[in-house]
Amino acid sequence: MGSMSEGVTQAVIPLAALTLLKVLSGNISENGSFNQRNRLIVNDDEEVGVDPDQLVFKCAEIQKAISVGATSFLYTQYKYLAIFTAIFATIIFLFLGSVKSFSTKSEPCTYNKGNICKPALANALFTTIAFLLGALTSVLSGFLGMKIATYANARTTLEARKGVANAFITAFRSGAVMGFLLAANGLLILYVSINLFKLYYGDDWEGLFESITGYGLGGSSMALFGRVGGGIYTKAADVGADLVGKVEKNIPEDDPRNPAVIADNVGDNVGDIAGMGSDLFGSYAESSCAALFVASISSFGASHDFTAMAYPLLISSMGIIVCLITTFFATDFLKINGIADIEPSLKRQLLISTILMTGGIALVSFTALPSEFTIFDFGANKLVKNWHIFFCVSIGLWAGLAIGYITEYYTSSAYSPVRDVADSCRTGAATNVIFGLALGYKSVIIPIFAISLAIYVSFSLAAMYGIAVAALGMLSTISTGLAIDAYGPISDNAGGIAEMAGMSHTIRERTDALDAAGNTTAAIGKGFAIGSAALVSLALFGAFVSRAEIEIVNVLTPKVFIGLLIGAMLPYWFSAMTMKSVGSAALKMVEEVRRQFNTIPGLMEGTAKPDYATCVKISTDASLKEMIPPGALVMVTPLVVGTFFGVESLAGVLAGSLVSGVQIAISASNTGGAWDNAKKYIEAGGSEHARTLGPKGSDAHKAAVIGDTVGDPLKDTSGPSLNILIKLMAVESLVFAPFFATHGGLLFKWF
Amino acid sequence: MGSMSEGVTQAVIPLAALTLLKVLSGNISENGSFNQRNRLIVNDDEEVGVDPDQLVFKCAEIQKAISVGATSFLYTQYKYLAIFTAIFATIIFLFLGSVKSFSTKSEPCTYNKGNICKPALANALFTTIAFLLGALTSVLSGFLGMKIATYANARTTLEARKGVANAFITAFRSGAVMGFLLAANGLLILYVSINLFKLYYGDDWEGLFESITGYGLGGSSMALFGRVGGGIYTKAADVGADLVGKVEKNIPEDDPRNPAVIADNVGDNVGDIAGMGSDLFGSYAESSCAALFVASISSFGASHDFTAMAYPLLISSMGIIVCLITTFFATDFLKINGIADIEPSLKRQLLISTILMTGGIALVSFTALPSEFTIFDFGANKLVKNWHIFFCVSIGLWAGLAIGYITEYYTSSAYSPVRDVADSCRTGAATNVIFGLALGYKSVIIPIFAISLAIYVSFSLAAMYGIAVAALGMLSTISTGLAIDAYGPISDNAGGIAEMAGMSHTIRERTDALDAAGNTTAAIGKGFAIGSAALVSLALFGAFVSRAEIEIVNVLTPKVFIGLLIGAMLPYWFSAMTMKSVGSAALKMVEEVRRQFNTIPGLMEGTAKPDYATCVKISTDASLKEMIPPGALVMVTPLVVGTFFGVESLAGVLAGSLVSGVQIAISASNTGGAWDNAKKYIEAGGSEHARTLGPKGSDAHKAAVIGDTVGDPLKDTSGPSLNILIKLMAVESLVFAPFFATHGGLLFKWF
Repeated sequence: MGSMSEGVTQAVIPLAALTLLKVLSGNISENGSFNQRNRLIVNDDEEVGVDPDQLVFKCAEIQKAISVGATSFLYTQYKYLAIFTAIFATIIFLFLGSVKSFSTKSEPCTYNKGNICKPALANALFTTIAFLLGALTSVLSGFLGMKIATYANARTTLEARKGVANAFITAFRSGAVMGFLLAANGLLILYVSINLFKLYYGDDWEGLFESITGYGLGGSSMALFGRVGGGIYTKAADVGADLVGKVEKNIPEDDPRNPAVIADNVGDNVGDIAGMGSDLFGSYAESSCAALFVASISSFGASHDFTAMAYPLLISSMGIIVCLITTFFATDFLKINGIADIEPSLKRQLLISTILMTGGIALVSFTALPSEFTIFDFGANKLVKNWHIFFCVSIGLWAGLAIGYITEYYTSSAYSPVRDVADSCRTGAATNVIFGLALGYKSVIIPIFAISLAIYVSFSLAAMYGIAVAALGMLSTISTGLAIDAYGPISDNAGGIAEMAGMSHTIRERTDALDAAGNTTAAIGKGFAIGSAALVSLALFGAFVSRAEIEIVNVLTPKVFIGLLIGAMLPYWFSAMTMKSVGSAALKMVEEVRRQFNTIPGLMEGTAKPDYATCVKISTDASLKEMIPPGALVMVTPLVVGTFFGVESLAGVLAGSLVSGVQIAISASNTGGAWDNAKKYIEAGGSEHARTLGPKGSDAHKAAVIGDTVGDPLKDTSGPSLNILIKLMAVESLVFAPFFATHGGLLFKWF
Repeated sequence: MGSMSEGVTQAVIPLAALTLLKVLSGNISENGSFNQRNRLIVNDDEEVGVDPDQLVFKCAEIQKAISVGATSFLYTQYKYLAIFTAIFATIIFLFLGSVKSFSTKSEPCTYNKGNICKPALANALFTTIAFLLGALTSVLSGFLGMKIATYANARTTLEARKGVANAFITAFRSGAVMGFLLAANGLLILYVSINLFKLYYGDDWEGLFESITGYGLGGSSMALFGRVGGGIYTKAADVGADLVGKVEKNIPEDDPRNPAVIADNVGDNVGDIAGMGSDLFGSYAESSCAALFVASISSFGASHDFTAMAYPLLISSMGIIVCLITTFFATDFLKINGIADIEPSLKRQLLISTILMTGGIALVSFTALPSEFTIFDFGANKLVKNWHIFFCVSIGLWAGLAIGYITEYYTSSAYSPVRDVADSCRTGAATNVIFGLALGYKSVIIPIFAISLAIYVSFSLAAMYGIAVAALGMLSTISTGLAIDAYGPISDNAGGIAEMAGMSHTIRERTDALDAAGNTTAAIGKGFAIGSAALVSLALFGAFVSRAEIEIVNVLTPKVFIGLLIGAMLPYWFSAMTMKSVGSAALKMVEEVRRQFNTIPGLMEGTAKPDYATCVKISTDASLKEMIPPGALVMVTPLVVGTFFGVESLAGVLAGSLVSGVQIAISASNTGGAWDNAKKYIEAGGSEHARTLGPKGSDAHKAAVIGDTVGDPLKDTSGPSLNILIKLMAVESLVFAPFFATHGGLLFKWF
């Protein structure tokens, strides 16, 4: 046993989470209001001739419209989710309860032979409860993230009047608040649940941690709908607004005359913030559950070593502390001085947190873990040392950094790939699309090697437990990742508010600079999300295979091979649905926007107000309707395959969708990010080369806008949703593994 | 043993092939010349006021320019290929020779324990010879195909004056000639080689059929460069010509004023004809080799039953006969009467050949195969009955038909998917691209289910032999498939020649109708190519695994899993290279075409001639330079992985690239085909709906042209090249399996 006692462990985790929540609550209330305009506008020398009172009022009004739109969308979405959750909770209970025919008798344990474990019915019940808790936490994370972001956007706009540095700090700090809130929230609820479940389970840790996997499923299934629904919402509005506003009417982005402009800004919050928040929370919950489950059937579980058992949670606690320290480097120690400092500052955050965290991992690994122990390895037991685990977590962490950096290289206009794409706009939209697609494909190579290396090392050192903690390592800097990710949509919204409030060109330039950096950081955030999703789903896959008591998944059997092939097809099916949904919803939006421009007199001249609400309604209705088929595909596939074709085919499907989905997800995100920044590169005209392509409205710029529009659903809907596809199918398989192992493979039993 | 004796078998195969070659040689000489214009122009009432002599002369001149361009490109390409072949032949000899340290001693057999087999050095030598023969046959197939096509194009143009039916028959018959030539040629050379090798090997069939696998490798490696080089050539020219001609200068497609027009027409022949010919020949050679290899280590080999052994070749012979009969349905029994009959007639070809072939398979299976025998099944022996094999071949055949039909559904403008894509052009190029990508993704679903079903059934019935013969079943109608596929580029060229020769609008309308049907049939041909490639590479994968003496490929080992992940990434890497190559080469072409329009006075007015040769040179140079990196990626990967990481990782890489590559290949081909036909649908204005989108030059049409241009490299370069990627890596692994099994996995041996 390591040098940390159970008492210390029991204190450290909630303390880390609670302290943070305390710090944050102060921060939120400080960040969250901008009524005290005296305190805000210290150096307001830019807006000469504009009544500052009126400006603040205007901003507040716009911000309110966005916040109300986002809140009402989420509430409507939650109604649907409540129905889904109720149905799925029932399915979980019935399926798992049926494993031992709803018997209330205790049973011999599966792994710790000789001991007596709680009845399967109890596991069914507690898994259902954990599922509900996970779903609730996920929804809470998304909602709070959205609330923070919609407070922060207008504040960032107002701060932009004082200079780019102030605006940056505001946007970044709000992102950080959101990141911490989410990480702390997830950690705390998981921790409390484990302790409460323990009251019933006592020494039956097998059953305890099997039930806890429901938490991951709950988190991820909400994230699915959040990502897909939010993604369709935001891109339908964005594409629709751009196609009429920018392309047909030649009015600037975020122009208040555009009827879809509020829907577009609402979309940033419900898609990129709430969706992303739920997604990363899901990854975090799932990798913790996968690690805990494998640990429970390894020597930690057998010897009831709570501190070693809680290692995954301790790593996350350490991550929160490290990220908190890291934040000060951006907001206090190394302040930025101008536009050029924004991207380096955000990148530095990643590097600093990674370096500090490596030390943190060492500390936790050598104090919490015994120096030697065994890990369950598909039927066998593998001897592992604590420094092996240190390596596993670290390699995940550093692989994440590598993915982050390579994503930046392929999506930032500071490097040649995006510049080449911008250059290809000279010959029109077709070459732009061809070059952009090629860039996305190419950007897959290094991340895949990084993930493969992480998998190889951690798998070799500590089997599936190694993979799970490597995923946690990558996610340990989640707060920083979320901070720099959420920073993007906040800045985007801030720019929108500046434009709509009619603020000066200087302010808009500053928010644009924040936004351009935000595009790259959003891509980095997506890179993290995808990389960690790959590791997480592999860890879940391993846990599933262990739970289903398969020792070999042999590609040379037809069951497994066709599973692989069909699994590899699912991401395409799913992407086809989501892309088409965005396309159809955007077409509806275009028609509505055109209708308003044609029928509302004085709209184009700015004398009449557009009908924002109808556009908000179109996005809401479309996203809610369209999120159901792809959601059903993901949720139903494991159930059908497991029930009718059995666990081996299901293992094939999971492996196939993982290895195929991760590639499409990375390439889709990066292609979209690159097109967006190629367009911004031409617009900004920051270099000799960029000026030969621009200015706004040139043929090359028009070609770039087409690329950007195509990229929207790729980078914000289908790409990021694929993370959830691969994770969710794996965690669902894990939760239902006892059922499949007992009753699965009906088709082969019949024939 | 079946009822067919060895003597009969030995007579049937060469007879089928030779008779056909005889029939063809008559057909070619009849088809191949159009000097006797009296015979040709019977009913030339369309071209009033045009001197027919001058027209024929003009056509002959253009045809000559295309033929010379294509021939000179292929000759230049062959010089590169000769160097590659020499180097790679040496590698094969050295690697395989080193397996037993170049010993000339005979060794105990690997599978037929107790018997004595020829030395490994002999296998190395004969594999090298088979490799060279395969390479030669592939090159010959591509070259002859190109020759036939470049004769047929002008003839089709001239026949179009007599009506659409005559033009159709000419184009189709030429395609058929090419298809038969290729199938017969491949079959005959393989057959002769086996018999010659037998003179040395005698009763050592293990060694004999191991060496013969070199034939597949040779065929496929030439096909790789043919597809990639030809694909880059044709699309650089096509995209370059369109971007300046259609988009900037507003001149029609194939206008003789466009300097890139000859390069564009040459490209159709070197890419779509020579490349496609080599590709399908490769599939055919590889699936035969895979089936023969597995048979040689099964009971057929052990009992030296030559007729049963030759079953794969007998199936192919039967296929040739069936396709020959089928052809008469298009050219004689059920002649077409108008434009509307073209597509149904081509589709009917597929259905008729499939129905007839099902009977043919039954005949061959029940006469050539013993009623019961055993098949090698990864270390075990599986008892198989002759009707099992009948089912395996048939399911492959019918799965091919299903893929063909579903491809037609997604790429023909007669159905809603393409019409939806056309409709999305209303809101511009961006929605067109989004809808097109979604269509391609969606079109993957049913083909994957069809392939999965074929795999499951044939794998369950007869292990890897079942897969190999299922692939042969799908390819047994290869001649028909090639005929309807080659028909496309021939019609495309015919249209080009009509335009360049300044023929009347009526003629151009007829060739356009042929061409539109050709786009769909080309997509169907690609669907076949991809479907069969999936089965072939799985069969090769199985043969490789058998030869490398692995019995299990367990996904739950890190070696295999990272192999899967990296394998799934390779198609993206490869596509990134080929797409970017087309993009860059097209940019060069655009610059040259613009330069000529700007600097040659009178070019736009038609008084001066453009400099076609420079454009031909740009395409040639670009394609030869750019085909090397993707070619190297495919050829080097199996060698590196096998040598350093060992056979299990390599098995993972093969499975990963197969399950991922097949999806990208299908979606890329169908997306491209759909965009092309959506554009043609708007141009043709054949329905009320189409007319609301058109006419040529409308905004919707411009958006459609952008989609079409993006689709060009997808459907004609990166998509179809992926077939070869997955097959070639598998066959290369199979050929080098003895080396990897002995010396592979160096990295793990060192650490």
